[in-house]
Amino acid sequence: MRAVCVLGTGLIGGSVLRAAVRDGRDAWGTAASEPTAAAAVADGFDVTTDTDAALRRAAETDALVVVAVPLTALDAVLARIDEIAPDCRLTDAISVKGAVADAVIEHAPQARYVGGHPMAGTAESGWAAGDADLFTGAAWVVAADDGLDLDVWRDVAELAWACGARVVPAASDEHDLAVARISHLPHLFAAVLSAVGAGGQGDDLALSLAASSFADGTRVAGTRPELVLAMCEGNRSALLAAVDDALGRLGAMRGSLASTGGLAATVTNGYEGRQRWASTREPLALPVSLDGDDPDAVLAELRELGRRGDVVEPWKN
Amino acid sequence: MRAVCVLGTGLIGGSVLRAAVRDGRDAWGTAASEPTAAAAVADGFDVTTDTDAALRRAAETDALVVVAVPLTALDAVLARIDEIAPDCRLTDAISVKGAVADAVIEHAPQARYVGGHPMAGTAESGWAAGDADLFTGAAWVVAADDGLDLDVWRDVAELAWACGARVVPAASDEHDLAVARISHLPHLFAAVLSAVGAGGQGDDLALSLAASSFADGTRVAGTRPELVLAMCEGNRSALLAAVDDALGRLGAMRGSLASTGGLAATVTNGYEGRQRWASTREPLALPVSLDGDDPDAVLAELRELGRRGDVVEPWKN
Repeated sequence: MRAVCVLGTGLIGGSVLRAAVRDGRDAWGTAASEPTAAAAVADGFDVTTDTDAALRRAAETDALVVVAVPLTALDAVLARIDEIAPDCRLTDAISVKGAVADAVIEHAPQARYVGGHPMAGTAESGWAAGDADLFTGAAWVVAADDGLDLDVWRDVAELAWACGARVVPAASDEHDLAVARISHLPHLFAAVLSAVGAGGQGDDLALSLAASSFADGTRVAGTRPELVLAMCEGNRSALLAAVDDALGRLGAMRGSLASTGGLAATVTNGYEGRQRWASTREPLALPVSLDGDDPDAVLAELRELGRRGDVVEPWKN
Repeated sequence: MRAVCVLGTGLIGGSVLRAAVRDGRDAWGTAASEPTAAAAVADGFDVTTDTDAALRRAAETDALVVVAVPLTALDAVLARIDEIAPDCRLTDAISVKGAVADAVIEHAPQARYVGGHPMAGTAESGWAAGDADLFTGAAWVVAADDGLDLDVWRDVAELAWACGARVVPAASDEHDLAVARISHLPHLFAAVLSAVGAGGQGDDLALSLAASSFADGTRVAGTRPELVLAMCEGNRSALLAAVDDALGRLGAMRGSLASTGGLAATVTNGYEGRQRWASTREPLALPVSLDGDDPDAVLAELRELGRRGDVVEPWKN
């Protein structure tokens, strides 16, 4: 089994490290601070603040390096990789894929990079909040752009399965547009709904009458603002497209409400979307062979599978 | 205890009738169809399709008449009231207050009307879905506009308490603006979010990645469209104001995202709104005396209490 070097052992990286160790792999990690490293060591894990040493060991063992630092710390980490383990097997666990791929091309161009996005999280953060079961049943997007190394693709998929996740292949740009629609826009809608509810006539009547429709619609507005900002601002151009789609629909709705008073198109489209989502809840797990003469044809097949809402079936060894 | 005549024995009216009977009151109702009346009679309740007979009995006993028919059926019911029990004690359980008050002035001008809005519901509808406990812990808005009859106000509040609800006094127009913000707008936001999630690049990738933020943000988009339309379209002008508030905030957000990429104002305002809502969850129950030389001063005091997010404390008999 492929060894795993996890750079950054917060909630996500710490959970990947725990799951990799549980899977019986040789796995180690790095922490940004001594207290975090000490806490992880006390829990029985091999975690250091010495990123260079961790990367040397990755180069020696041909390990899969998993970048799980915040987007703002990415460039510095990639520079160390380019210095110490330039052609390593590389993936990441950051919530945008286009920006990370661009940064890899700029700062660690020789790395064999295949992006990843394990789609799980909690309101908590940090090493202590990590859990080997965090990704159980969650989607783990694995980038499937033309030109990627299928051998590393296999490593990333196998790590995702070891973490209990289902593997969803997607082009990086399509991933970014998709998460803008179903994760980042919901956070912004929740924030605006919350502000409208609280901002009314300057009193608490509206909030005192708010019940389940408001509670559900604004739940994620209670997330720590810095987490929401890092996620949404990091996906700026895709998010702008999703916001413009929403504004177009809201503008048409506003026009209809003002002119005829009718809301049927808005409400019916929303109802149908929700029904369609409910029907995608059980993805098909389909077998895919990564072997073949034309790697880009395999990657194209993977992307098509993801677009249909399906997942890759774990292969038998 | 005041007798109660409930016009319309669907989910809301049927629940009010059950709670009134459980409270030991003389209570009867009307149904729009024979099968509904038969079902209610089979359950041991005094329900007829003869609205005129029910209203004659209300006039004879000085009962509180509760209109619980859909907004579209309101005018016809008010016309019967004006014919048979013109100066009856009258309230309603419809989700908008301004439009109902206007209809009463037009079609039953002598009625002693005090509007009500019990804020509870389920996805179900009809007599069979009714429950004497439907309103337990729910807000029950009682209109507190100048000029209302405080003796009927007392009747409505006492009925709300008999149903287990908390009494929130509000001006009719302020109620309509408030529910537009915290109930009707959340339904429209959920519909748009659902359509954006489903409408992406014409494939199922986005929906297959959707998790809790999307699930919560679109939950009420799964409500039957006709119920959402009746509710939202019936509150057109107040809803338009809420939509415009939301569009203004979204437009500012879009401008900031496009120009600087920053979303801090949006996300922070949303977080603060959600925190403020959480802090309004436990209303104070305050004593109010309905006796006094100046009824409008009492009504003004009631409105102020509701604006602060508080409720009226049940009086001791």
